[in-house]
Amino acid sequence: MPRVSTDELAARRQRILDGVRGCFARHGYEGATVRRLEQSTGLSRGAIFHHFRDKEALFLALAEQDTERMADLVAEQGLVQVMRELLASPESIDVGWTGTFLEIARRGRTDPGFRDRWRNHAEALTAATRARLERQARAGALRDDVPVPVLARYLELMLEGLVSHLATGLPADDLEGVLDLVEGAVRRRR
Amino acid sequence: MPRVSTDELAARRQRILDGVRGCFARHGYEGATVRRLEQSTGLSRGAIFHHFRDKEALFLALAEQDTERMADLVAEQGLVQVMRELLASPESIDVGWTGTFLEIARRGRTDPGFRDRWRNHAEALTAATRARLERQARAGALRDDVPVPVLARYLELMLEGLVSHLATGLPADDLEGVLDLVEGAVRRRR
Repeated sequence: MPRVSTDELAARRQRILDGVRGCFARHGYEGATVRRLEQSTGLSRGAIFHHFRDKEALFLALAEQDTERMADLVAEQGLVQVMRELLASPESIDVGWTGTFLEIARRGRTDPGFRDRWRNHAEALTAATRARLERQARAGALRDDVPVPVLARYLELMLEGLVSHLATGLPADDLEGVLDLVEGAVRRRR
Repeated sequence: MPRVSTDELAARRQRILDGVRGCFARHGYEGATVRRLEQSTGLSRGAIFHHFRDKEALFLALAEQDTERMADLVAEQGLVQVMRELLASPESIDVGWTGTFLEIARRGRTDPGFRDRWRNHAEALTAATRARLERQARAGALRDDVPVPVLARYLELMLEGLVSHLATGLPADDLEGVLDLVEGAVRRRR
């Protein structure tokens, strides 16, 4: 086997993850057959599973990476802004982490082992949301009659609802107004 | 074939729906094999599919019934109260419509035909939520700076987020506080 650099290895893993994201989102976990994973990456099963132990490991790596990206975005812009962008670019629903998200929710429900492994990753998003809210609280921008962990959970639930709603293909009207309402509910009242 | 009354037919359909609910919730749509559907109802596949054209028809009938029940509960008690009860009785998560809900979301995503058929049923819940909010608005209990359809969509999204969160098995702490926040966000400020 030729020797490859760590960078090259990381790039190959990334290429696989980028390829399979849409495949999982479009076909669901069960529907993402090895054949389809091959087609979506342009790689053989041998090449794919050289980098990931099995389909679950591949899916978990994808979900983990999507959550990390979300956490970065949240740390930078806040969860409400992330929701606004989600609303503004519905194409992200088709190929992005929203499809992954529904698969996570469903596998978490039917597979307790997966749920436990997933919980650890989900904490990253909670932590990022709380950290940002705490900064805003110190700046006096948040209402102070509700503890920050409750505000963080509130925003998380709204995100989960929004993603689930959009990914299911339910009507998107009134959602801008909903996000204004959500933003108003966490801000200090003037 | 022996003749049966309409009541008896309805009772048989209902027995099947009650039996398969937990099966779909526990195993997911794909995982609910015909064999498992037989076990969960104590009926043969012939008996089951005498009443429902196929597995999708069975699932859609279940989802439709669960949504109707939700709509009745919402009309009677309001969506926030429904969410509070959901939180108070997590066992409803295991066998109730929350499992069905995740399957609906996922099938809506991967199957546009299903999504369209489902959308019509989902309207029932929206209509019930709006009707109740309009009654509350007339009684002066709601904030009047946000249109009722936006408030209704807001509560729906919270429900979707809560169900998704609980069904995925994510931490349930702080959720009481979140519901207080949600309730406060739709009420008239005092």
